Amino acid sequence: MLAREVIEDLIKVLGKENVLTEQEDLLTYAYDATAAMKHHKPGVVVSPLNTEQVAEVVKIANRYKIPVYPRGSGTNLSGGTIPSEDSIVLSMLNLNKILEVDQDNLTATVQPGVIIQDLNNAVQQFGLIYPPDPGTVTTATMGGSVSECSGGLRGLKYGVTKHYIMGLQVVLANGEVIRWGGKTVKNVTGYDLVALFTGAEGTLGIITEILVKLIPAPEARKSIMAVFDDVDKAGKAIASIIRNKIIPATLEIMDNVTIQTVEHFVHAGLPLNAEAVLLIEVDGYKEVVEREAVLVEQILKEEQAADVKIAKDDKERDLLWLARRSALPALAQKRPTTVLEDATVPRSKIPDMIKAIRKIADKHKLNIATFGHAGDGNLHPTILTDERDLDEMKRVHLAVDEIFQTAISLGGTLSGEHGIGVAKMKYLDWEFGEAGVALLRSMKEALDPNYVLNPGKIVRRD
Amino acid sequence: MLAREVIEDLIKVLGKENVLTEQEDLLTYAYDATAAMKHHKPGVVVSPLNTEQVAEVVKIANRYKIPVYPRGSGTNLSGGTIPSEDSIVLSMLNLNKILEVDQDNLTATVQPGVIIQDLNNAVQQFGLIYPPDPGTVTTATMGGSVSECSGGLRGLKYGVTKHYIMGLQVVLANGEVIRWGGKTVKNVTGYDLVALFTGAEGTLGIITEILVKLIPAPEARKSIMAVFDDVDKAGKAIASIIRNKIIPATLEIMDNVTIQTVEHFVHAGLPLNAEAVLLIEVDGYKEVVEREAVLVEQILKEEQAADVKIAKDDKERDLLWLARRSALPALAQKRPTTVLEDATVPRSKIPDMIKAIRKIADKHKLNIATFGHAGDGNLHPTILTDERDLDEMKRVHLAVDEIFQTAISLGGTLSGEHGIGVAKMKYLDWEFGEAGVALLRSMKEALDPNYVLNPGKIVRRD
Repeated sequence: MLAREVIEDLIKVLGKENVLTEQEDLLTYAYDATAAMKHHKPGVVVSPLNTEQVAEVVKIANRYKIPVYPRGSGTNLSGGTIPSEDSIVLSMLNLNKILEVDQDNLTATVQPGVIIQDLNNAVQQFGLIYPPDPGTVTTATMGGSVSECSGGLRGLKYGVTKHYIMGLQVVLANGEVIRWGGKTVKNVTGYDLVALFTGAEGTLGIITEILVKLIPAPEARKSIMAVFDDVDKAGKAIASIIRNKIIPATLEIMDNVTIQTVEHFVHAGLPLNAEAVLLIEVDGYKEVVEREAVLVEQILKEEQAADVKIAKDDKERDLLWLARRSALPALAQKRPTTVLEDATVPRSKIPDMIKAIRKIADKHKLNIATFGHAGDGNLHPTILTDERDLDEMKRVHLAVDEIFQTAISLGGTLSGEHGIGVAKMKYLDWEFGEAGVALLRSMKEALDPNYVLNPGKIVRRD
Repeated sequence: MLAREVIEDLIKVLGKENVLTEQEDLLTYAYDATAAMKHHKPGVVVSPLNTEQVAEVVKIANRYKIPVYPRGSGTNLSGGTIPSEDSIVLSMLNLNKILEVDQDNLTATVQPGVIIQDLNNAVQQFGLIYPPDPGTVTTATMGGSVSECSGGLRGLKYGVTKHYIMGLQVVLANGEVIRWGGKTVKNVTGYDLVALFTGAEGTLGIITEILVKLIPAPEARKSIMAVFDDVDKAGKAIASIIRNKIIPATLEIMDNVTIQTVEHFVHAGLPLNAEAVLLIEVDGYKEVVEREAVLVEQILKEEQAADVKIAKDDKERDLLWLARRSALPALAQKRPTTVLEDATVPRSKIPDMIKAIRKIADKHKLNIATFGHAGDGNLHPTILTDERDLDEMKRVHLAVDEIFQTAISLGGTLSGEHGIGVAKMKYLDWEFGEAGVALLRSMKEALDPNYVLNPGKIVRRD
């Protein structure tokens, strides 16, 4: 239980209506979207209305040495939003205003509680887009998405969240408020703290304002589906598209397990026997999209695709992408627990990775479906399991270990877009060695010496 | 003088031939390309052949608490490469190999001593480019350019150095060697140290290997010159191009002082009475370049350009860009000392900034030419002076102060691409406040507690 005086101090700053202490409220904030994680009930949930209140909460947390867990919509997939027992959860959902859209400088300024899709809706009227589009684009907040450096389907051509963050206002662990970056395309003043806070999972500071880069919306787009009877052929086709200097906006892959599950779920016309399906979208200038779609079709045929289909209209296009976007929900309804990973490898290693995952599944007698962003090497091996089955869960954990070992041995990384959080902390020294982990810790301690901000994530106290 | 034992330890690691101690050699390393800076002769210059030797040098430096100054070609414009008296200069020029070009993953791996243009020459045969192109592209090294996060002429469309750095090998202040990042487009494992070391000016670690992203070379390009009798009209034309969703590869501006000087230098046909000239290049797919060039011409006329010229062929194009690239050398031959700044403002504030610079020049009776990257707001106010004239230099320093004050008050930043180094350290708290500078210092001290790596740059010991 949190001491009564902490709650009272918080109420003084935020008002009673923005300080939740009822057990049923606290329970709601005990977990996030990560499967099979230990939950912890916080001692209080506060919802500040402005940056000053965030700073005051952090000062109170520091005074009493109580951890603060910033939180958006809780869609996190690495346990990064799960609080510790009796801590303060800092919900950013009240800070939900789009403060400015600047057409001349192609920027927007938003508060962290803004939903990603709402920003896109707001800039659409100006012919602009904010490209990062994680699967949770309609529910996740900008603050969470910046803190996790979300990726999504358009990484290959458009990059990820960090490529669109130009400036941040941040509340530091000592309660001071700093601003970094701005509307200039170029900025090399001091260390790049905008990049450092982006993807820091709320462990170094709390983001209270975000300046993003916008770009003109593409004029046209064209979607293509290719069916392969062999994962290697799909891999060669991916390489061949890139070698022909075509950078698709989206280049997705689904393996046989995913195809079968999705097809039974949405009936999009996916071939049940295919070993791999590629879903490709080229976008941009209308003349170029036409030319590239034809070239992609030709390449896919040369690379022995069993079938190639170009979506003729929006209806056909939507059906293809519904199939891809249904991968996770379709898989999730098969078993009670869905362990979704984001091991990532260089693009050229995708066939090796998919085959390795299949071997790991066989070895541990698990049902693993693999789909993901082939264009940027970011795969989502998805283990369908049941967290109540302790024996199976033991095998799940072994399989996850092996999946990450394989990703690293192929020159990849532990996390392409879900973050380290709690879930992947134990693997960090596989990628960085002890010196690298020590370096992370020294940075954490330089910026948050008391481990007040989202402690227990990325690096633990030594 | 450096103690004899330090030199002996260095010779043991590097061999006699890679350890310079002759006075005339040391003198060569006492300065960089920054004007009007105090020079300091180092005690020794070492040229390691591999990462292990770099690590050993850093360990020796730590043991004797002697500062180490990493250095590429010395083209730095903020005093960032100038050593302190009796220190160790670490020349990276022997580490000059292109280790790999990976066509499937669109990456190259290089050592820090590789000249930027040499990388571009090496990837050209694959139809690829490394987009960052600072003015010093034919002389500056990749290591220096990553450490400074160089910008250049293509920032608006292609971004700057940091957008192309995917992985780094770094020797830390304690001599440990770490690797960060890799060939995956997505990577959110741990804090983004690749971004942190990029632009850190060698104060946090010494970069010994660089993994860069490459992109397909544009198919076509078209250059356009527009002449304006009014800076505001030029500013409106810039805004109008962007509002029409055209993102030129290059969008440069030259003011009247620059135009006059350049024209007398290269005879490129620039109009001597123009208040501003815009030089624009659109590039990309051939159909689109054609369409965009026509649209840009139309916009420029609508925005009351006095004259618009599209380069008909490569010869005309080269002449236009020769004019732009001659700006600095042309200005530099007018007076003995050229103080080149890189104050940067949001694109929409360029006319305000140019007019403010003119006022500052008049007030202090100085000759200031302004040219630069209008598309990304990165201007180069260039003061033509003589560092032997102490009275004039006093006015130069006052003018520089006011230029930076103005940039910050317009929502800009102290440095778009030259870095902070020694030259702009005193302005840092104008932009970040004391809390921000303290934060920088705490990061420096977390990574380099003994101030061994390029000390006296960005932040000083408290």
